Amino acid sequence: MMKLVLSVGLDNFLTELAATIESDFRRWESFDKTSRIAAHSVDGVIELMPTSDGALYVFKYVNGHPLNARSGRQTVSAFGVLADVATGYPLLFTEMTILTALRTAATSAVVAKYLAPKGARSMAIIGNGAQAEFQAVAFKALLGIDRLHLYDIDSTATHKCIRNLEGRGFSITACASAEEAVESADVITTVTADKQNATILTDNMVGTGVHINAIGGDCPGKTELANAILARSSIFVEYPPQTCKEGEIQNLPPDHPVTELWKVMAGQAERRTDAAQVTLFDSVGFAIKDFSALRYVHSKLVRQGFSEDLDLIADPDEPRDLFGMLLRHKLL
Amino acid sequence: MMKLVLSVGLDNFLTELAATIESDFRRWESFDKTSRIAAHSVDGVIELMPTSDGALYVFKYVNGHPLNARSGRQTVSAFGVLADVATGYPLLFTEMTILTALRTAATSAVVAKYLAPKGARSMAIIGNGAQAEFQAVAFKALLGIDRLHLYDIDSTATHKCIRNLEGRGFSITACASAEEAVESADVITTVTADKQNATILTDNMVGTGVHINAIGGDCPGKTELANAILARSSIFVEYPPQTCKEGEIQNLPPDHPVTELWKVMAGQAERRTDAAQVTLFDSVGFAIKDFSALRYVHSKLVRQGFSEDLDLIADPDEPRDLFGMLLRHKLL
Repeated sequence: MMKLVLSVGLDNFLTELAATIESDFRRWESFDKTSRIAAHSVDGVIELMPTSDGALYVFKYVNGHPLNARSGRQTVSAFGVLADVATGYPLLFTEMTILTALRTAATSAVVAKYLAPKGARSMAIIGNGAQAEFQAVAFKALLGIDRLHLYDIDSTATHKCIRNLEGRGFSITACASAEEAVESADVITTVTADKQNATILTDNMVGTGVHINAIGGDCPGKTELANAILARSSIFVEYPPQTCKEGEIQNLPPDHPVTELWKVMAGQAERRTDAAQVTLFDSVGFAIKDFSALRYVHSKLVRQGFSEDLDLIADPDEPRDLFGMLLRHKLL
Repeated sequence: MMKLVLSVGLDNFLTELAATIESDFRRWESFDKTSRIAAHSVDGVIELMPTSDGALYVFKYVNGHPLNARSGRQTVSAFGVLADVATGYPLLFTEMTILTALRTAATSAVVAKYLAPKGARSMAIIGNGAQAEFQAVAFKALLGIDRLHLYDIDSTATHKCIRNLEGRGFSITACASAEEAVESADVITTVTADKQNATILTDNMVGTGVHINAIGGDCPGKTELANAILARSSIFVEYPPQTCKEGEIQNLPPDHPVTELWKVMAGQAERRTDAAQVTLFDSVGFAIKDFSALRYVHSKLVRQGFSEDLDLIADPDEPRDLFGMLLRHKLL
């Protein structure tokens, strides 16, 4: 995956991936949609996220284990499969930890094309962990945002971020507080990892006209924004049945109005309508983004060749002769 | 998989796998049980079958595409993953087409240890497709059954079976009809591939005291036995909520009594109680058998080494520095 991304070029990869996500969101109604299937345990969760458009089938396997960092492991890691619906045969098996970081950032940037204020140049990033740089690079590639205000409760995370983004054409300010970071920012990205309901943004911190890209609140009991912000925002979501359980809106009454992003992209619902409007993307991650990501990677691999053949499918000379294939293998 | 099976030895592999399945059935209550998650399409179905015992997690991906044989592909193929619940990290990714054939046969043989008439030596196999030889070898390894009566509507399938089983110590009769095959057989295995409700066994064909190992009826609308046989059999199943939709018992009232096999193996329900009893294993396949199969294969691989390392998990020097890992890869 790293070889492929660097060969395609990070900006180019994010831009092409974003276009794939956008085109799949526009045909949202052609997908099988199901909430993820979760296996919870004491230390974390393992989830399977399947979806299909009738021609291709994908699933992602993703774990969430907060204690993994203690042993130097990833809190969240993922892999996925793309398969051909007509035969049921798998086409691609790949890592998706890096790919998920890329598709999450690409989606945020696509969404901001529709919702961010006109001419946006600056973005606050609250939470400077694993996802922060991907968000920054995607917003620069797709929207030209090149002024970053970074804040994290752990300043070593901010320094890591600055170091990694050096030489990519950003003007970066390390801020001493979330308040300082959001001041005068056109876009506010919240991407903290706290497991509990937290208030990363209070009502007074959010001025008129900003776009909030809320990434961190993504499971039951984990949110980042004060309810008063939600109350005066136009809220945009991926898949309402999932977001109402996992997103910021879990703290709102179930009948609170939200707009589905696919409708905005398909021209069936309004994007940002005025300069004073506060827009909010309540991101939780949905299987169709992974579908787009796997479909895009598969299309690139055909040309780029950064893949290996896996001997995964039994292929006896005569389909019914599985046992004979096993026996003959002995003779070779 | 073929190398591993042949290195362990087919009989030994089936015997050890059967013991693993039996021990997992005995602790049935410690498993998360969920019905399979199916994505249906015009040409077939793709299913994910997850389960966990709290320490290990598995899922199997399996397709069912009846038209695949026309293009030389497998109607059913499968792969699976074994993962560590404590970290969410995958431990094993493997083909499961051959492994599913082996675990299905091993399960049938384990079940027959509890249900087949005492001293059983002969078995009829109706349907001589991909699963037939595996059943024969498993019954010989676990029960000493060495007299086979084979029948298939397509005699080339029967000939393939005879050829493949040559030299394994069987006395084999190719029969001209299902009636001839079941005559005087102690065990009757039905393993036909017909997609429709069919009557492979009629009531008059089943004498007292036999054990019926019904493998082929394994999805809604696909059954093999006349209802009158079910009515006078003691019926044993894997997981009632799944079997009542997919097994032979889909044609019975939902309150018809069945016995769960795990209870028989755990000594909580009776096995065969008299010589005249007709016993029926209504096999549909359940995720816990795949759990046992993956757990067994993983334990063998540690010692046998027929596996390759997959570079699947992102491993940055600092867990939060995913972006830096990607950048540094460029520099190498």
